[in-house]
Amino acid sequence: MMRLADLGEFGIIERISRLLPATPKDVVVGIGDDVAVLDTSGPNYLLATCDIQVENVHFLRHGISPQQLGRKVVAINVSDIAAMGGRPRWALVSLGLPSDLSVTFIDELYHGLNAQAQVSGLSIVGGNLSQIKGPLVIDLFLLGECDKECFLRRDGARTGDAVLVTGDLGDSRAGMELLMHPELQVPEEVRTQVLAAHLTPHPQLAEGQLLAASRRVHAMLDVSDGILSDLGHICESSGVGASLDLAKIPISSACRQVAEAAAASPEEWALTGGEDYQLLFTADPTEVEAIQALVSQQTGAAVTVVGRIVAAPGMITVIEPDGTMKTPSGASGWDHFKQRKQP
Amino acid sequence: MMRLADLGEFGIIERISRLLPATPKDVVVGIGDDVAVLDTSGPNYLLATCDIQVENVHFLRHGISPQQLGRKVVAINVSDIAAMGGRPRWALVSLGLPSDLSVTFIDELYHGLNAQAQVSGLSIVGGNLSQIKGPLVIDLFLLGECDKECFLRRDGARTGDAVLVTGDLGDSRAGMELLMHPELQVPEEVRTQVLAAHLTPHPQLAEGQLLAASRRVHAMLDVSDGILSDLGHICESSGVGASLDLAKIPISSACRQVAEAAAASPEEWALTGGEDYQLLFTADPTEVEAIQALVSQQTGAAVTVVGRIVAAPGMITVIEPDGTMKTPSGASGWDHFKQRKQP
Repeated sequence: MMRLADLGEFGIIERISRLLPATPKDVVVGIGDDVAVLDTSGPNYLLATCDIQVENVHFLRHGISPQQLGRKVVAINVSDIAAMGGRPRWALVSLGLPSDLSVTFIDELYHGLNAQAQVSGLSIVGGNLSQIKGPLVIDLFLLGECDKECFLRRDGARTGDAVLVTGDLGDSRAGMELLMHPELQVPEEVRTQVLAAHLTPHPQLAEGQLLAASRRVHAMLDVSDGILSDLGHICESSGVGASLDLAKIPISSACRQVAEAAAASPEEWALTGGEDYQLLFTADPTEVEAIQALVSQQTGAAVTVVGRIVAAPGMITVIEPDGTMKTPSGASGWDHFKQRKQP
Repeated sequence: MMRLADLGEFGIIERISRLLPATPKDVVVGIGDDVAVLDTSGPNYLLATCDIQVENVHFLRHGISPQQLGRKVVAINVSDIAAMGGRPRWALVSLGLPSDLSVTFIDELYHGLNAQAQVSGLSIVGGNLSQIKGPLVIDLFLLGECDKECFLRRDGARTGDAVLVTGDLGDSRAGMELLMHPELQVPEEVRTQVLAAHLTPHPQLAEGQLLAASRRVHAMLDVSDGILSDLGHICESSGVGASLDLAKIPISSACRQVAEAAAASPEEWALTGGEDYQLLFTADPTEVEAIQALVSQQTGAAVTVVGRIVAAPGMITVIEPDGTMKTPSGASGWDHFKQRKQP
C-alpha cells in the first residue's frame, strides 16, 4: 500500500490534479497553483485561495496568542493574493473547535482575524463551525480580484531573467527557533523582531499590486515554503532552472544573531525556513533598477537580486560565498525540508 | 469561564457576527446565513459557502466509503446553493489528512468529489492539504452564482404563508440508525433506500432554481438540521412564527419501517433528524397549487404543505395527529437536538 508520506505534499497535489477532469474555459488558472483565477463574466477576474492551519502541525496553542493566530491566518492567505498582484475582498472561516476551548479564545481569534482583515481591505462574510475531537483547525477561504490584463502567475520565468526578492529571508525561522528554545541568549530587540516575523507576518500586498501593475515582472510567488522550494515551483512551471547566489540572499542582523546563538546556519534558515511571506519574482535584468526604484519609492521595501534563471529545466544551483556550487536534490528543495513538510 | 458548549453552535455564530465590523456595501447577504451573497460588479451575484466535515463528528470512517464521502461533501454544499436558487460553479477542497490514510483513500475520495461535481455542474479548482494528528477533516468551499433579481433568502416569510417542503423527511436519520444498528431487521430495498439517503444525499438543485425563478416563493432554506430547527431559522430571520401539522409531514414507508424496527418515532426523526437536504420554503397559500404543478412537471419532485406561518415571532407549534399542540422550546428546535449539535 502506497502511503501518503511516500508521495509528500506536492506529490499528492500532482496526483489529485491528474484525477480531476479537464479545466473548463471559465477557469483561467486551476489546481496546482496557490490561487485559482476564475472568470465570472465581471470586469475583473475572481481569485480564490484557501489555507488550512492545524494545531501541532502549523502552530502550537501555547506558542501563539489567539489574536496573533487570527492575524496570521488572514495574512498568509492575503500573501497568496498579493503574489498575483490582486486585491483581497471577502473571506469565509471554517473552524474545527476542540471542546476545551474557551469562548474568550474565539473572541480573541476573531479580534485578530478582523484586525488583519481591516488592514488588508477584506471582509469576513461567513464560515462554518464544527466540534472536533482533536487539534484546533482553522481553514480560511479568501476571495479576491485582479485586473484581467495584469495579474502574475508562476509560469512566466524566462532564461536570463534576474531572480528578485522583497525584504529579508530567515526571520520567521529565527522566530520559530526562539519559540522552541526560549532560553537562547539574544538582545531583546532581536527577540521582538524575529518573533513578530514568525507570529504576525506582514503580507507584501502593496508591493505585489505595484509589481503586477508595472508589467515589468515575468513570474511571481510568495516565499511560504522557503525560497529554494518556491523558486523550484517557478522553475518547474516555467520549464527553466535557476542559480541562487547565497552571498546575496538578504538576511537580517537579527536572524544572524539568533542563528549564532543556536549554532545554526542563517543561510540555511533563509533558504528553507519558510513562512517569510516575502515576494519572489523574476524580471529582465535591464528592468531591475527601475523595479527597485519603483518599489522603494512607493512602499519603502527593499528589492534584492539573488540569482538568475537558466536554461536547465528543474535544476537549481546554489553558489556558496566561496564560489563552490551545490545542487539540492531536485527543484522541490533540500531533502530534509521535504521531509518536514510531508503530510 | 464560559464554555463553547454553553453557547451552542448558533450561539457562537451570533457572538461571532456581533464581533465583526459593519457589512460593506458589496456584501448583499453576510454572516449568519448559510451562503454569502457578494457583488463582484459582474452580471450575476457571487455565492460563497463552506462546510467543514470532521471524522467522528459528521461521519465514521468505517461507516461511509471514501467515494460516498466525497460525493456527500459536495452534495451538502450544493444543497445550500440550491436553497438560494443559485448555480454552483467552482469548489476548493481543504484536507486535514491523518498519516494512516492510504493513497487509495485519496483517489477514491476525489472520484466521489468529481462525480458529484460533474452532476452538479461545478469544477474543483484548488485547495490545500495538511497533515493532522487527529481525525480526518474535509472542508469544502463552494462558489456559485445567481441572478441579481431572483435569489431566495431565509428572511422573507410572511404571516399567513403556507410552509412547504420537497420530497420526504426522515430517511437520512433512518439510514443513520441502520449504520449504528445494522442488526435491525428490515427488507433489503428499505435498507438500500435509507442508506442512500444518508450516505449519498441528492441536493434539490433543479427544484431550487425553478422555485427561485418562479418568483412565487418568499423564503427558502435546505433541511440540513431537521425541519424544526431550519423552520426556526426562517422564523427568527423573518420575525414570524409557524405551526407545523405533524400528520402532513411527508414520511416514506421505508423510514416508518426502520423506525418501527428500532422502536423509535418516525415523526421525531422527520422533525429533528436532519441531513435530508430537501428544500423548505414559504409561499402565499393561493400559489401552492401552481408551485406543486410546476415542480412536479419539471422535476417530478413532490411538494407538500406541512404548516403555516403565524404572527407569533420565534414560536413554533407542532400540531399532533390527535389535535393536541406541542411547543418545542424556542425556535431553534427540541432541546435534545440542540445538545446533539453543540460544538
